[in-house]
Amino acid sequence: MLTVYESQTEQGTSWTVVSPIVFTYKVTETRHLLDPSNDTLLLGHITDPQQLEDVKKSNMPIKRFVVVDQEVYKIYAPKLIEYLEANNVLYKILSLPTTEENKTITMALQILEEVHNFSLDRRSEPIIAIGGGVCLDIVGLAASLYRRRTPYIRVPTTLLSYIDASVGAKTGVNFANCKNKLGAYVPPAAAFLDLSFLQTVPRRHISNGLAEMLKMALMKHRGLFELLETHGPMLLDTKFQADNSCLQAASQATRIAIGTMLEELAPNLWEDDLNRLVDFGHLVSPSLEMKVLPFLLHGEAVNIDMSYMVYVSKESGLLTENEKQRIISCMVGLELPVWHEACTMELIQKALQERLKHSGGLVRMPLPVGLGGAVISNDTSCEILHKAFVKWREELSDGSSDSN
Amino acid sequence: MLTVYESQTEQGTSWTVVSPIVFTYKVTETRHLLDPSNDTLLLGHITDPQQLEDVKKSNMPIKRFVVVDQEVYKIYAPKLIEYLEANNVLYKILSLPTTEENKTITMALQILEEVHNFSLDRRSEPIIAIGGGVCLDIVGLAASLYRRRTPYIRVPTTLLSYIDASVGAKTGVNFANCKNKLGAYVPPAAAFLDLSFLQTVPRRHISNGLAEMLKMALMKHRGLFELLETHGPMLLDTKFQADNSCLQAASQATRIAIGTMLEELAPNLWEDDLNRLVDFGHLVSPSLEMKVLPFLLHGEAVNIDMSYMVYVSKESGLLTENEKQRIISCMVGLELPVWHEACTMELIQKALQERLKHSGGLVRMPLPVGLGGAVISNDTSCEILHKAFVKWREELSDGSSDSN
Repeated sequence: MLTVYESQTEQGTSWTVVSPIVFTYKVTETRHLLDPSNDTLLLGHITDPQQLEDVKKSNMPIKRFVVVDQEVYKIYAPKLIEYLEANNVLYKILSLPTTEENKTITMALQILEEVHNFSLDRRSEPIIAIGGGVCLDIVGLAASLYRRRTPYIRVPTTLLSYIDASVGAKTGVNFANCKNKLGAYVPPAAAFLDLSFLQTVPRRHISNGLAEMLKMALMKHRGLFELLETHGPMLLDTKFQADNSCLQAASQATRIAIGTMLEELAPNLWEDDLNRLVDFGHLVSPSLEMKVLPFLLHGEAVNIDMSYMVYVSKESGLLTENEKQRIISCMVGLELPVWHEACTMELIQKALQERLKHSGGLVRMPLPVGLGGAVISNDTSCEILHKAFVKWREELSDGSSDSN
Repeated sequence: MLTVYESQTEQGTSWTVVSPIVFTYKVTETRHLLDPSNDTLLLGHITDPQQLEDVKKSNMPIKRFVVVDQEVYKIYAPKLIEYLEANNVLYKILSLPTTEENKTITMALQILEEVHNFSLDRRSEPIIAIGGGVCLDIVGLAASLYRRRTPYIRVPTTLLSYIDASVGAKTGVNFANCKNKLGAYVPPAAAFLDLSFLQTVPRRHISNGLAEMLKMALMKHRGLFELLETHGPMLLDTKFQADNSCLQAASQATRIAIGTMLEELAPNLWEDDLNRLVDFGHLVSPSLEMKVLPFLLHGEAVNIDMSYMVYVSKESGLLTENEKQRIISCMVGLELPVWHEACTMELIQKALQERLKHSGGLVRMPLPVGLGGAVISNDTSCEILHKAFVKWREELSDGSSDSN
């Protein structure tokens, strides 16, 4: 394959280099991830059958560096230690308070100091991250930096990270008071998903994750929307745990959410294409989230943004009144906020101007069309934005969502 | 193109994601880079003709953040400022002491604070780095981290960085007393090469760069070897500057060195393939360099490594006595050290063991075959390594290289 093109100019030689890098990674749902007889956590990232066999036959103990969110560690420490001991792993566990406030390069470097002292083989001994999105993001960045790329494994323990942070290539930390200002696009070697972690997640944080699930439903999948509409409240009640009535809906919902998310992310892993359906709910919400921090969770801010955009779609003729009402009712059923007083027309306009700056001069506004379809609009008029806002405030601002 | 493969397992769904990222970048030789009429530094990275035309037509001033090595700045500040002013650029210049000792994440973050305050458009306003390899490496890492990837431009001012650091994808800083322990594989948007910067480089540092040039010659290009053999001393005398007799040899030598280097790097930008000819001279030298720091420059340590490997090749029957002597004489002509007392058999053995650890259990030793060819050997015996060492010491260790 020709990858270097040489040409002569008056002033010397010029080379154009075209070099493809292929990222391959696995996202795998499993059960009983910390059951000592389940070797997914230790070997599930190995794709080459020969290599897998070699490792299994080898007498060398497996070596793993594990970073766990402090709150998760409080609950799962005994199981995790038992798992590693039973599998004869040489391990080091680093438990850290991976909160939004601590999501800094300093914490990434703290992890790297420990990794360095532990001495890992950069090719065969991936770093394991167990926690929510913040934990997965920090560890992902640290691993990506170490020796220019050390493989890492994501184990999400919240619904939001289960269907969002665990599946793409983004890593990052906050910097200079800005969210995820520093980071890398390096996917994990693998993400291992186990719904049983969700049983210890607070109800409000399940709702939080459902917002991102609803996002994918509205953009791409009518079936998922109807599933959330019908079974959402039950998924919230059972926290996706496997009692008989829930099992099928829970696994269907996560499967579709992840599948549609990967369909969008995989061809655009480095976000070179700025037209992204996954940005739905993420145009106004960053400004709103920063303004009212810490009172809204990420998914809550996203939902308020989506709720407003549903009104924009309606005013643009992309949704019927009935579709609009079904969407808002579904949101309410998921116990997500559909309006916030801090989300003023002024904030919306500022946020959209900010968006213009970072997306090549076009607003690229994903809007739902019907239930499960979408367009990306660049020409939604101020008039429509304003009319939608007035309607939105009128119908949803009485402080409760019962007006629907 | 199918990029997500879904499969069902007993325990849930598993997705395999295969996602290619294509890196495209330019390495361009130019003259008079800081002549106000030459727009290469400002626009040379733009590959899309339409975009280039739009920028040229636009009335908006160009905005650039420039990081310059402090020593380089002392010499070129007036020219650089004049250039930027003449082209009506909104600029910020950050001059930093980019020495090996300062090659840290702290300096990268210092750059990022300033970049953040300056406020750049992450897609259209690349960060420019002007300096030697250390400067290009630090700025490259900083840019790669900022907003997960901000384009950057490399302007090398030493011979070593001209033919080496400027052409590949590697960026990095030292960490925990280890060279380049943190970094990324993200190529620049473009590298702009201007030989005239070399006129202010000390003679010893020209030799330093010639070592990496000789490396590519020995591995891949007999013509380049013969050029260095014949014209090397003159290139050293003239510092690659364009007096009539030198011009052709200088431009030929850099063109071939960069061309062969890119041929090797481009298909293996992320170093997934461990069999690398560009590693010639880099098996023993890292240990030697760290041991005697700061008494050997990088290229000098590389040359001592190559000199020993030439003896290993000879003992392995890959070089004739005459070829061996021609190579050593060429090194001497380039004023490069061919032996060092700190490079003991013990150090060599330790370094090769270290190599084994980081290259998947095989030593993958590039060895010259004849003049301009190479093999990668995994089975060079201890006996040959030892015999070569004894011969090497015997012939070259009298403190001067005149024994040849």
